[in-house]
Amino acid sequence: MTTPAWLSTTETPYLLIDKNKYLKNIRRLYTRTEALGSKVRPHLKTLRSVEAAHYLLPERHDPATVSTLAEAEAFAKEGYTNLLYAVGIAPHKLPRIAALMQKGTDIHILLDSREQAEAVVSFGQQHAVAFSVFIEVDCDGHRGGVPPESDALLELARMLEDGGATLTGLLAHAGESYNCRTDEAIRVAAQAECDAIRRAGLRVREQGHRCPVLSVGATPTAHFADNLSGITEVRAGVFTTFDLVMKNVGICEMHDIAMSVVATVIGHNRDKGWVFIDAGWMALSRDRGTAHQVTDYGYGQVCNLEGQPLNGLKVDITNQEHGIVVLTADYRHDDFPVGSRIRILPNHACATAAMHRQYEVLGDDGEEREVWSRIVGW
Amino acid sequence: MTTPAWLSTTETPYLLIDKNKYLKNIRRLYTRTEALGSKVRPHLKTLRSVEAAHYLLPERHDPATVSTLAEAEAFAKEGYTNLLYAVGIAPHKLPRIAALMQKGTDIHILLDSREQAEAVVSFGQQHAVAFSVFIEVDCDGHRGGVPPESDALLELARMLEDGGATLTGLLAHAGESYNCRTDEAIRVAAQAECDAIRRAGLRVREQGHRCPVLSVGATPTAHFADNLSGITEVRAGVFTTFDLVMKNVGICEMHDIAMSVVATVIGHNRDKGWVFIDAGWMALSRDRGTAHQVTDYGYGQVCNLEGQPLNGLKVDITNQEHGIVVLTADYRHDDFPVGSRIRILPNHACATAAMHRQYEVLGDDGEEREVWSRIVGW
Repeated sequence: MTTPAWLSTTETPYLLIDKNKYLKNIRRLYTRTEALGSKVRPHLKTLRSVEAAHYLLPERHDPATVSTLAEAEAFAKEGYTNLLYAVGIAPHKLPRIAALMQKGTDIHILLDSREQAEAVVSFGQQHAVAFSVFIEVDCDGHRGGVPPESDALLELARMLEDGGATLTGLLAHAGESYNCRTDEAIRVAAQAECDAIRRAGLRVREQGHRCPVLSVGATPTAHFADNLSGITEVRAGVFTTFDLVMKNVGICEMHDIAMSVVATVIGHNRDKGWVFIDAGWMALSRDRGTAHQVTDYGYGQVCNLEGQPLNGLKVDITNQEHGIVVLTADYRHDDFPVGSRIRILPNHACATAAMHRQYEVLGDDGEEREVWSRIVGW
Repeated sequence: MTTPAWLSTTETPYLLIDKNKYLKNIRRLYTRTEALGSKVRPHLKTLRSVEAAHYLLPERHDPATVSTLAEAEAFAKEGYTNLLYAVGIAPHKLPRIAALMQKGTDIHILLDSREQAEAVVSFGQQHAVAFSVFIEVDCDGHRGGVPPESDALLELARMLEDGGATLTGLLAHAGESYNCRTDEAIRVAAQAECDAIRRAGLRVREQGHRCPVLSVGATPTAHFADNLSGITEVRAGVFTTFDLVMKNVGICEMHDIAMSVVATVIGHNRDKGWVFIDAGWMALSRDRGTAHQVTDYGYGQVCNLEGQPLNGLKVDITNQEHGIVVLTADYRHDDFPVGSRIRILPNHACATAAMHRQYEVLGDDGEEREVWSRIVGW
């Protein structure tokens, strides 16, 4: 296999996206979800890139999820009109939400408490803004949300609609599914997530609220749910590139991972069997998400520049701008001369992407170089 | 104690520098090092900021250390002329080094292998550039470098000077000192670092090389070395802001830490005793450097907005844009209403700063807001 020359000349370390794999991963989830009668609301937080979002959102009104208002503002500026800000709303952020709505963006906010609902109603009434709200429903005790059977759920729905806000939907996130160890466990988690949101939806609608959207999602459950009946949309983020954590959970194979960091060998410690590279935690991130999984990949799986994994080799140690690969018995220092290049697959794509301002993209012809830029900040 | 209004209105999460503490930390190390007859060559990698460097480098020719060529180019553009790029040189980076030299910057490169020395000599001869080189000397087996007693040290010195490069100095880095548990252990590490570089210097100079600079440093050893006789310069980076790792090592007190992340409370899980904040690992970093130290601070020590540590409270869990503080028996949810703000001290200042594009700075009058920007990329 040959690689285009620019892979060897672009300054290292850099983040590389394999566009063929990226597109294939998107097709896989979209096809699956649509066959089950639902729709993907992709989470744009992994790459936070307008160029990357283009392949996820063919139409400007397609639904999307964001993790920061910086993303919401950047995607709204590009004309995307259906954005869910999926972090519990802080009252001081409401003016930015209102400003986006006034420019014509349907931005939806998330909450799970009386205090938030009061702030939303109060700001909305003072400024004549009808906020579009999702209530978070807890399906697995992972983070926030109100239980589907709770009085709090109905109370929040009533407070919002009585106060002039719009209850657009209910949202569940099966965050515990990242810790599943078998396909069957993920299937159970997906079922529980869907069941929780269906029960919650039934109760809310029985009270006379329209609440049109039922939203579930986490990358594992999105790939294992078999029954999306009644589920309007499925959220997932890391599925576009996948990573070693997802490989360990069993959602993808190593060869599906569309993201890597390209690094240059800068030295050796022959006594210790160490190879030094110019990618430390600044390029790879400090994420050690595989540390307690079935296979611990250190700070990332080492591949050759063509992208073939080198069995058993990982980045074992990182400093800010140094990485250290500890050679196993199968490899010698001469396999990695100073100046040669390797690729490193990430533990956690969201965390690794966050360390970069732009991504080098190997086009779907396997040759052309594209550059995708990252939206930064909050 | 009161805080200026802008601490409560600036969008969260944001990184805050307390300038009084920052200046005090700088004075402490500079005074100490100069009293011992040496000079600080600050490592600019922690904040990577021109505005921050101003207080470290009163004169444009003062020596500084950088971790990337992006920093070198940015500081050179500001007129700084004495820059050590303290990561082993990759041959493909030599053209960027040569370009900086041609613009009048004294940029020094680092190496520890024949392959690198050959590349430096060869490029230098082809392009009529006399590179200024430091040889890395191993003092503790932490990372790279040649042993002070090795033949390799003398061979590298000879190769460089015979080949037309300038051997400017020798460099040691006591990286193992970050793992020390007592002051006495750090003193021993500092002594070993200085002894190694002195022995190496003696051997190189006996061979007729001038090699004017002997450079040591790591923040712990810089603060505990008692005898810097013959040591030209001391490198340190994280000392300007300190962090919880350094607090655990015993180099600073909690109240010396000049960096924090300001976050807003966005929700509660009353059953679990959880407080949700809008600072996750995107704002705090994934660094868990205190995990195996004397005190594990999770993802950071929680303080009130005035900066007073709240005893026993830390950020226990992070997702991308969520942090979770698990309340201890001393605190109630009502102490942290939705919309209120807290500060979080970082485990590792270099890693936390890397997640931000700019820093909000509380001026030395305790009121004024400055903004320092970060140099990004490689």
